[in-house]
Amino acid sequence: MFSTSTQDLYITYVDRMQKIADIRYAAAVLEWDQETYLPPKGATARSRQLASLSEIAHEWLIAPDLGDLMQELMQRGDLQEDERRNVELSLEDFNKQKKFSPAFIRRLSEASSRSFHSWIQARAANSFAIFKDDLHQLVDLKKEEAEMAGYEGHPYNALLDNFEKGCTTTLLDHVFGTIRIPLKDILDRIALRPQVDDSFLHKHFPRNLQWNFGLDIIRQLGFDFSAGRQDISEHPFTTSFNARDVRITTRIDENNFNHMTWSCIHETGHALYEQGLPPQYYGLPLGEFASLSIHESQSRLWENNVGRSLAWWRTVYPRLQAIFPQPFGGVSAELFYDAINKVAPSLIRTEADEVSYHFHVMIRYELEKRLIDGSLDVGDIPRWWKENYAAWLGVDVPDDKHGCLQDVHWSHGSFGYFPTYSLGSFYAAQFYETAENQDVNINRSIQDGNTNPLLDWLRNNIHRHGRRYTSEQLCQIATGKGLDIQHFLDYLLKKYVIIYDF
Amino acid sequence: MFSTSTQDLYITYVDRMQKIADIRYAAAVLEWDQETYLPPKGATARSRQLASLSEIAHEWLIAPDLGDLMQELMQRGDLQEDERRNVELSLEDFNKQKKFSPAFIRRLSEASSRSFHSWIQARAANSFAIFKDDLHQLVDLKKEEAEMAGYEGHPYNALLDNFEKGCTTTLLDHVFGTIRIPLKDILDRIALRPQVDDSFLHKHFPRNLQWNFGLDIIRQLGFDFSAGRQDISEHPFTTSFNARDVRITTRIDENNFNHMTWSCIHETGHALYEQGLPPQYYGLPLGEFASLSIHESQSRLWENNVGRSLAWWRTVYPRLQAIFPQPFGGVSAELFYDAINKVAPSLIRTEADEVSYHFHVMIRYELEKRLIDGSLDVGDIPRWWKENYAAWLGVDVPDDKHGCLQDVHWSHGSFGYFPTYSLGSFYAAQFYETAENQDVNINRSIQDGNTNPLLDWLRNNIHRHGRRYTSEQLCQIATGKGLDIQHFLDYLLKKYVIIYDF
Repeated sequence: MFSTSTQDLYITYVDRMQKIADIRYAAAVLEWDQETYLPPKGATARSRQLASLSEIAHEWLIAPDLGDLMQELMQRGDLQEDERRNVELSLEDFNKQKKFSPAFIRRLSEASSRSFHSWIQARAANSFAIFKDDLHQLVDLKKEEAEMAGYEGHPYNALLDNFEKGCTTTLLDHVFGTIRIPLKDILDRIALRPQVDDSFLHKHFPRNLQWNFGLDIIRQLGFDFSAGRQDISEHPFTTSFNARDVRITTRIDENNFNHMTWSCIHETGHALYEQGLPPQYYGLPLGEFASLSIHESQSRLWENNVGRSLAWWRTVYPRLQAIFPQPFGGVSAELFYDAINKVAPSLIRTEADEVSYHFHVMIRYELEKRLIDGSLDVGDIPRWWKENYAAWLGVDVPDDKHGCLQDVHWSHGSFGYFPTYSLGSFYAAQFYETAENQDVNINRSIQDGNTNPLLDWLRNNIHRHGRRYTSEQLCQIATGKGLDIQHFLDYLLKKYVIIYDF
Repeated sequence: MFSTSTQDLYITYVDRMQKIADIRYAAAVLEWDQETYLPPKGATARSRQLASLSEIAHEWLIAPDLGDLMQELMQRGDLQEDERRNVELSLEDFNKQKKFSPAFIRRLSEASSRSFHSWIQARAANSFAIFKDDLHQLVDLKKEEAEMAGYEGHPYNALLDNFEKGCTTTLLDHVFGTIRIPLKDILDRIALRPQVDDSFLHKHFPRNLQWNFGLDIIRQLGFDFSAGRQDISEHPFTTSFNARDVRITTRIDENNFNHMTWSCIHETGHALYEQGLPPQYYGLPLGEFASLSIHESQSRLWENNVGRSLAWWRTVYPRLQAIFPQPFGGVSAELFYDAINKVAPSLIRTEADEVSYHFHVMIRYELEKRLIDGSLDVGDIPRWWKENYAAWLGVDVPDDKHGCLQDVHWSHGSFGYFPTYSLGSFYAAQFYETAENQDVNINRSIQDGNTNPLLDWLRNNIHRHGRRYTSEQLCQIATGKGLDIQHFLDYLLKKYVIIYDF
């Protein structure tokens, strides 16, 4: 059947994968447009255009002859190392995706579409009841998906694997179990100290000045504007149509300095990763990001380890003061630094500080795990949510909008996604500490406002590997050991002991 | 083979056509993005993404079983009239497209891609020589295309048919032959009269004020911003992703009032047509525009018959004066009207007035006809261009950039496109005169700044028919007779006899 040379077979494989990528990226352009510029009445046709593109991409990806081709390639002895790794990973995707029939994919996609709309309505009406039935159906479909995909141990593992290959409840129970108490301890200690003043972050910051400041810092952090752009959307996000066309978005709140600034830095972190992926592997696994937790490690490293550090603001803050003499003219860099690092447990995950953030994630993780194994009923979510927010964060959830309706993820059918946010922070701390230790120039340069040495380290140690390694392998290679949350705890303690003087 | 009911067969046909439309419209989104927001380095991947989408659309459109399905449907006696017309037109497209092998389509697409880049370079270097070889190859391919497509009479007919079904050199020779002398006569008569002053249109008009004025008039003309939007691009254009998502673009020259204003009105004309197509026929011929000349009739009717009329500016001009007290404060509506209708033969088609414009088209038509039948060599284009611009417009072509390199069309492989521009103007005059005669309210309302009655007439007489009729049939139905260029000549004479007092 395959008398062709290995090189010709490989070229055929590449050609097919790149054509699938063309369709996936075309869909990504349509999605980007949907979030940024789509006129309201265009939504209906856009949904079906996206559905058709997904259908083609899925159909092509699970084509039996593509599977045969890859099987054959894996048996050839003369594939180069990179080539072999590409085929191996594509074959993994193939074997995973082919478990789902087109009919099931369509049911899932339709259920998500319905759920998204009822979630929007539920939020507007501030009533979980409106979302409940559709969410119930989605949870059932995700259980079905877990059974089709197969798993060892907990059925939730099958869903975790969608976002983080090899991630399991055993692993997460251990990580979260280890960090929960020390984190709570930091929160409790801070609660006993006088609160820092961040009132000057909530003055009036004209839209246009914020926008220009955002573009300025994005450029300074190394984002290549000839290979990407920033636009406005309701929820900030990053998307990529190849390493040479990476789009980020932000939102601007004229009465809150935090929203735009840290969304710009966060999304720039994602974007620097995408712009740093090897472009020669367009459409192939080695040209893709390693995992969602590694992706998130990049956004959080820039957002927090750099963007919430005093070192970096030393050179940026004077520029900021020049742009907003009111209110920053009379505020020192140190007070500004304290304010942007204020810790105060609250209701909304996306607005949480670096300590309490992970309780938002842990609560969602525990909740999803229970939904998928059936030990918690969808109808009990609001009660469970309220109880856990009271227990862990000491806050009272007043209604569903400030509670279990705040995130879009479930309505998209994304169960198993949240944990990658916390893993991202943990990896970020470990990467950052390693980078600083390996190259003394990194810290020194940041104090001069130059983040290029840091970016170089990330390009060399993380970005250029694409999807070659799993998160854990990558962590091992880049830092000499697997994930160790002590780095994150050390980072927090070092920062907050000074700010809150405990 | 087809034991299914007619209704089920028809549903299958609709489903397949709509999926093809999904792909075509997805490509249109990618093209829109390419012209508006694409970062420079994104161009390479974008080309291949677009090529993959075109390939799928073409492959699906010429699928033999789709052809069989449509053949079978045409033989059923129980199709409703609209259904039959849809299938009939789709089958026409199928029979035309299947003449071209995927390999030929790819060769054409690659040659166009190459030509576009060498055209860009040639323009930058102001040298036709750089474009010549690629253009030569494209002309050869278009000759080949004509032979594959088949034709009666002149081979150019096969290419004209791509843009205007049934259009032939016989028809165009007759139309242009009839209008050439009277048009030249108007030009000559105007040349003997004192020139109008339009210097105040070339003052400084700040970008932002122009942009807002543009949005204002677009809205007033009836463009639905919940079903479309306007953005900036280098060359203004209109595109549609369905009747509920129609995008227009404009460009702003701060030192020339004309550019943005009439591009806004022109593109709005195209967009009103697209927004007026029946949305229930998404992806089907009855949901598409009739022809390029009819499309152009809509843009030119709004641009010229409305947008260059004194009646319409009577109510809009005071607003314009309020926005730009300098220079318009001291200029009467009458003088403004004279200025925006200034006639002066010049080198650039897109900047030409309503009279000399058609010589630009006729020169290109004659030239293309000769290229395709081989009586003119590609190398002789600059000389031929210079001679004909001197003979018909009395202008001296100083270089290629202001001559045969000015239009993008050839570099896209579009031969046979230009004539539809003139036909559009001629149809526009006939439609407008008919509309005014049929409904006295139209003219009266325009004087009050209300163009809704005119839009209603166009919706009822042109837009709602989609692609049901050919240009000539539609003209017959809407105006009671086929194209009669006397309407256009009457319109010009009526206007310019007053402005130039001859």
